[in-house]
Amino acid sequence: MSKRLPVSISDILKAHSRVKQNVHHTPVVTNSTFDDRFGRKFYFKCENLQKTGSFKARGALNAVTKLCEEDKTVSGVVTHSSGNHGQALAWAAKTMGLKCAVIAPNNSPAVKLEAIKGYGADVVLCEPTPTARQQTCDKVSKERGYYFVPPYDHYDVIAGQGTMAVEFLEQVPQLDAILVPTSGGGMVSGIAIAGKSIKPDLKVFIVEPQGKDVERCLQAGDRLWPNPPRFLNTIADGIRLQQLGHITWPIILELVEKQVFSVTNDEIIEGMKFAFERMKLVVEAASGAGIAAAMSDKMCNLDDNIKHVGVILCGGNTDIHHLPWYQ
Amino acid sequence: MSKRLPVSISDILKAHSRVKQNVHHTPVVTNSTFDDRFGRKFYFKCENLQKTGSFKARGALNAVTKLCEEDKTVSGVVTHSSGNHGQALAWAAKTMGLKCAVIAPNNSPAVKLEAIKGYGADVVLCEPTPTARQQTCDKVSKERGYYFVPPYDHYDVIAGQGTMAVEFLEQVPQLDAILVPTSGGGMVSGIAIAGKSIKPDLKVFIVEPQGKDVERCLQAGDRLWPNPPRFLNTIADGIRLQQLGHITWPIILELVEKQVFSVTNDEIIEGMKFAFERMKLVVEAASGAGIAAAMSDKMCNLDDNIKHVGVILCGGNTDIHHLPWYQ
Repeated sequence: MSKRLPVSISDILKAHSRVKQNVHHTPVVTNSTFDDRFGRKFYFKCENLQKTGSFKARGALNAVTKLCEEDKTVSGVVTHSSGNHGQALAWAAKTMGLKCAVIAPNNSPAVKLEAIKGYGADVVLCEPTPTARQQTCDKVSKERGYYFVPPYDHYDVIAGQGTMAVEFLEQVPQLDAILVPTSGGGMVSGIAIAGKSIKPDLKVFIVEPQGKDVERCLQAGDRLWPNPPRFLNTIADGIRLQQLGHITWPIILELVEKQVFSVTNDEIIEGMKFAFERMKLVVEAASGAGIAAAMSDKMCNLDDNIKHVGVILCGGNTDIHHLPWYQ
Repeated sequence: MSKRLPVSISDILKAHSRVKQNVHHTPVVTNSTFDDRFGRKFYFKCENLQKTGSFKARGALNAVTKLCEEDKTVSGVVTHSSGNHGQALAWAAKTMGLKCAVIAPNNSPAVKLEAIKGYGADVVLCEPTPTARQQTCDKVSKERGYYFVPPYDHYDVIAGQGTMAVEFLEQVPQLDAILVPTSGGGMVSGIAIAGKSIKPDLKVFIVEPQGKDVERCLQAGDRLWPNPPRFLNTIADGIRLQQLGHITWPIILELVEKQVFSVTNDEIIEGMKFAFERMKLVVEAASGAGIAAAMSDKMCNLDDNIKHVGVILCGGNTDIHHLPWYQ
């Protein structure tokens, strides 16, 4: 692996010792019906059972803890995210005794804002565009003197997410590949760095909602997305951002497979239903995307040498009063 | 503990070695929000993640495996249960290469019958009363020469369910008490025998749907229920049988606490919702009853020395297209 990468396995192992007292060592579940139907062995890493209901607790806690180690005067942290990173940062700040502000679009579901407030954070509303949320975040950061902890484009966040792969390969050393539902790319870059350091032959695949177009970018070796960044029209709200990040992109380009799993809303719903009905797990649509990739024709046609496939069930924060199969 | 009991810890440990290759070693999850709100440490044993979606896989597999050890000519097994024991026995028979017939009430949801057929068993329909199902079961058993494996009143089934407590006390040795949603009493008697053999101070509590009236029977030391046996009007279909069994009763009377947790439908729904929303687990109403007991005023007023409380999430077989909070 290239030495140019800004996050190393050593950073990820340090992150692991930093966070492991406070995050859950999430279980890996298997399902023989699924394996029989899709012809390989699948292992589901249950980050839906993680603190705050998603893997984001890992990256947020690593960033906040490291910040406290490095600057004893830090009083608070801020981010823009109505979703899992917002909840995770609010929780991480509370865990470390810091204040926290979360910038959220003014069309966020009330249940998400209540969850953030439940961890003691301030919610500051803004217009529902990627640009407005960054501007509001910068303003709050400046006015209150809070450190900005971005959702994915941050070395300590990436290192924190990488701890998942350290655990997963301890739990299932025989993994040949991991499927990673991807938004800005913090999780997939952390997993790729850790996973390929521990097991160089491991293949890390991106799972995306249709329209994200990562395969075309990876094959061109270029960030071809339109600007300003935009949200995709997908039910998987946790992974609706079209662009990969600027910090995550070079890591992904170097380490992640060029073949990408692209899934539709209907496929995502089928994935979610399998989790609820057969695995007895509440998962959000982004996790459903991972399951849908495992169920896909593309997976079915993949190299037979890929026998043991990990799937990240990245989160479980779905509104149980508005499940997609009731609509 | 009395030596009169027909199932011993040794039977349960033998059952454990018999089944552990084929059943899941289910995880125990904790939830700090729950603990903060209800003032003790709670540990949830996830039998909803068990093979076939409920703890019943343990008892059924122990009974079928022991049968195969003892009678090399056995060709099949039969039971009456539209629900979890039916699925579990079908699965256990398939696992051991036996035939299986399941007697089910003719008003059973199609989804349940499909699940049983999915494990390769024959479904035989009957009138929806406890008496009709036993008669039909006896008839099929006689005609086909299948062994009858009852849902709870059977030593090997009880021993199989007891394996759950062996695991649970290995996972959480500090447990002071376990809350057990109870129907015929196979699970609670197995858990009580294993649990109190391993840790004599452990308290085992029954959780029941309102109207089961176990506390009055236990305090009278007598089976006061009306005959013929009837079903309670509860959404917790897995535990709707009013009477405890004839074999389970003396075990329960000797080992289980006289104080019983009785929960209403509304409380059960709140318990289920907590599991779905906060624990990210799909549970059936009977598991919701266990959570509801943990949330109850009775639990709140229990002896402060009971600090570490186990809750059995006994199953996850609920129809996700008819969740109770959508009705």
